[in-house]
Amino acid sequence: MDVAVIGGTGEEGFGLTLRLAKAGHHLIIGSRSEEKGAAAAEKARGILGGDAAVDGTTNEKAAEQGEVVLVTVPFAGQADIYRAIKDHVAPGKIVVDGTSPLATAVGGRAWHVLRPWHGSAAEQAKAILDPGVRMVAAFHTIAGDALQDVAHTMESDVFVCGKDADAKAVVGGLIEQIPNLRWVDAGELTMARIAETLTALLVSVNRTYGIRDSGFRVTGREDWGLPPTRSRA
Amino acid sequence: MDVAVIGGTGEEGFGLTLRLAKAGHHLIIGSRSEEKGAAAAEKARGILGGDAAVDGTTNEKAAEQGEVVLVTVPFAGQADIYRAIKDHVAPGKIVVDGTSPLATAVGGRAWHVLRPWHGSAAEQAKAILDPGVRMVAAFHTIAGDALQDVAHTMESDVFVCGKDADAKAVVGGLIEQIPNLRWVDAGELTMARIAETLTALLVSVNRTYGIRDSGFRVTGREDWGLPPTRSRA
Repeated sequence: MDVAVIGGTGEEGFGLTLRLAKAGHHLIIGSRSEEKGAAAAEKARGILGGDAAVDGTTNEKAAEQGEVVLVTVPFAGQADIYRAIKDHVAPGKIVVDGTSPLATAVGGRAWHVLRPWHGSAAEQAKAILDPGVRMVAAFHTIAGDALQDVAHTMESDVFVCGKDADAKAVVGGLIEQIPNLRWVDAGELTMARIAETLTALLVSVNRTYGIRDSGFRVTGREDWGLPPTRSRA
Repeated sequence: MDVAVIGGTGEEGFGLTLRLAKAGHHLIIGSRSEEKGAAAAEKARGILGGDAAVDGTTNEKAAEQGEVVLVTVPFAGQADIYRAIKDHVAPGKIVVDGTSPLATAVGGRAWHVLRPWHGSAAEQAKAILDPGVRMVAAFHTIAGDALQDVAHTMESDVFVCGKDADAKAVVGGLIEQIPNLRWVDAGELTMARIAETLTALLVSVNRTYGIRDSGFRVTGREDWGLPPTRSRA
């Protein structure tokens, strides 16, 4: 699958690039600058070995090329970046927002959050893009630095929020290809109002215990992923 | 320890009563009506066996008698109940709020939340009580019906929020006495703004997967409980 990562030069985006390229996908790193995108792709290929399919370009071109578009940018720049790519994201495309509205966006603390006007960062993103785009929110509970260490086994579950069940299943399929990660369908896109704040809760736990990569496992069921009442289309 | 449970006739409060009485504590169930409190205590003794130390009375008397006061009431009645007990909670006492501001309080959905004016239900409670009360927020991720089934092994972690580290350690000590439960120090009381919403996220997960008691385990450390930089006083 062709997967674009807007903000793919950041920790979270670069980590997801490495993990998904390792799983066999073609990754397209997007950056504000084509040169930085290309340099990050070269770095990724260097880490993964010569046959890894990672390219780098501008955010706009990446958004056009990706069948699935992951957006991993700080909240402070999130709206601007969505405005920049909006004409390059065709209706029907799956866009996955991983933004957490941390208070660092306004000089505050990483364990505090802002309340986005639309309810969540993902809903803000949806309001900017074409209404036909299939918006999903995910990846809030996955630490960027742990993702980048490809030898490190991830130990967390990913909450996936969105209206479009098939889009969630596609995103879930990508998540399952990262060893030891699981996805949990958390319901509608508005549930991102809660899921996005988990990043801040984990930052607070990290800070309290002096660690770097706390995460969540959801209990109550042996397996998560696709909910039982639906079958994969 | 003498533990009062305000709202101890509800699912969550009655479940905690059973579990903590089983651990050997003296539980005092509080209710709006002395008769209902006494009846719930009799029911608890019936479930646990004759030597269980469970009494029942009014919320006010229970608040006076408990060394630790757990408050497990629906958000719609929370402020009223705190106003009723405020003159019966002496400064220095530990009060543990377990309220989640679910939208059911205003006829909404259990997987949606309201935003309390004070930031969280726990901060609203703190604003009502004497400033000397040691306020802690906890128990948002523990399903009431699972707690009530004393044969059922709980499988979740409890986020504990509050300013007073010693109070959190006391509450954590109670949590650890319920088999298989662990507590995670989530930071200041304001972190309840996030922790309280986890109830709604779990309700959404339960609804999506057709289950009843999803929960969380926090990953990133072998053990949780008391943070490493402090020793128990």
